[in-house]
Amino acid sequence: MRFQAPESLSEQIAQHLGQRIITGQLPPGERIQELKVAGELDVSRGSVREALLILERRHLIEIFPRRGAVVSQLTPKLVNSLYDIYIELLCMLGRKVLERWSKPEVAGVMARVSELQSLIDPGKSRRDEPTESVIEAGFEVMRHAYRMVDNPFLEETLENFKPAISRTYYVALESFRGELAETERFFQQLASAVRRSDAAALEVSIRAFGEHQRRQVLSTLRQAESA
Amino acid sequence: MRFQAPESLSEQIAQHLGQRIITGQLPPGERIQELKVAGELDVSRGSVREALLILERRHLIEIFPRRGAVVSQLTPKLVNSLYDIYIELLCMLGRKVLERWSKPEVAGVMARVSELQSLIDPGKSRRDEPTESVIEAGFEVMRHAYRMVDNPFLEETLENFKPAISRTYYVALESFRGELAETERFFQQLASAVRRSDAAALEVSIRAFGEHQRRQVLSTLRQAESA
Repeated sequence: MRFQAPESLSEQIAQHLGQRIITGQLPPGERIQELKVAGELDVSRGSVREALLILERRHLIEIFPRRGAVVSQLTPKLVNSLYDIYIELLCMLGRKVLERWSKPEVAGVMARVSELQSLIDPGKSRRDEPTESVIEAGFEVMRHAYRMVDNPFLEETLENFKPAISRTYYVALESFRGELAETERFFQQLASAVRRSDAAALEVSIRAFGEHQRRQVLSTLRQAESA
Repeated sequence: MRFQAPESLSEQIAQHLGQRIITGQLPPGERIQELKVAGELDVSRGSVREALLILERRHLIEIFPRRGAVVSQLTPKLVNSLYDIYIELLCMLGRKVLERWSKPEVAGVMARVSELQSLIDPGKSRRDEPTESVIEAGFEVMRHAYRMVDNPFLEETLENFKPAISRTYYVALESFRGELAETERFFQQLASAVRRSDAAALEVSIRAFGEHQRRQVLSTLRQAESA
């Protein structure tokens, strides 16, 4: 029996559609029609169906028995639910890093944090430095933490939440653009807590930053609603 | 465009295969061959492939690009990773119940807990009362808590972990059989903490019971390994 790397095609379709959902080109509530997507991308309907299951796992769509796939809503209630669990899992990730770290591993994370700080340091970076690269650098710190914690379930669960979190960042991108100082302050607190192995301070800083981003996203959503 | 409830077929296949994995009929490391399953169940290969994506989401199999689907390993390290995140999410569920509960809602949970206690009360139940029904009653308490907390992401994440947790219970079923008193004590503590709205006590009791089950599973695994 041979597999012709079938996951990679459905994964590619999932990433293509996922990107369109994250950036809002496919808006909340939009139906995703298997046949139409299959025709547009010149792929089989089965591959599209697999891609939809991957997107459902990543919290970007919902699949209903008769209606088919629909882009997930982006309401304040859902954003709150999402941030509630995401912040909780980030705190768990932080705690586990401190439980398990060894000096060289922490040095690696610190190097990543410095890298991120240099990206957002207003002295070093150009003013038009894309916000996306700062977000990506934050995710890169998480990837480093995954290797330290080595819990595949935690990693997978957090990774599956990332696309939905990215979608909320994208909504509030304009708000985030003025927030580089805040992000920098957060990463300084994070680095300092990790260096001192201070679990309580680490949790406080993760929660504070998560709650800050949640408020930005919610305020942007409310503005959009009332516009 | 019409959908002929395609999810329900792949879901049925996923549940069929999932049950065989949970009970150990499909052991860790076993390959699941799409064509063979499709032939045995007289379904399309596409439906099997969708079922495999569902089982991957439920942490029962892993899908590798060229090797295909393989039943997840059940090592002490993986069991530890699984219980780490599961206990954390259960604590979050408990905290959120206390944050949001209202009297009639708590009364509903209490009724469920009493129902469970009557199931496992050695005075009321026969000695051969199946352990599975106690486990199922525990899951039923969770379902009630979901409705109170109303966070679809937390619910979905916990539900996706349940099959993998059930698999570990199944491994340790013989050990659990003597554990009804422990389970009863746990549910008494849980009910008491909820009634008093004591978040700290609730978290202590969830952690204590989760850690107890983790130890039972790990000790059974070690016995099996050394046998």
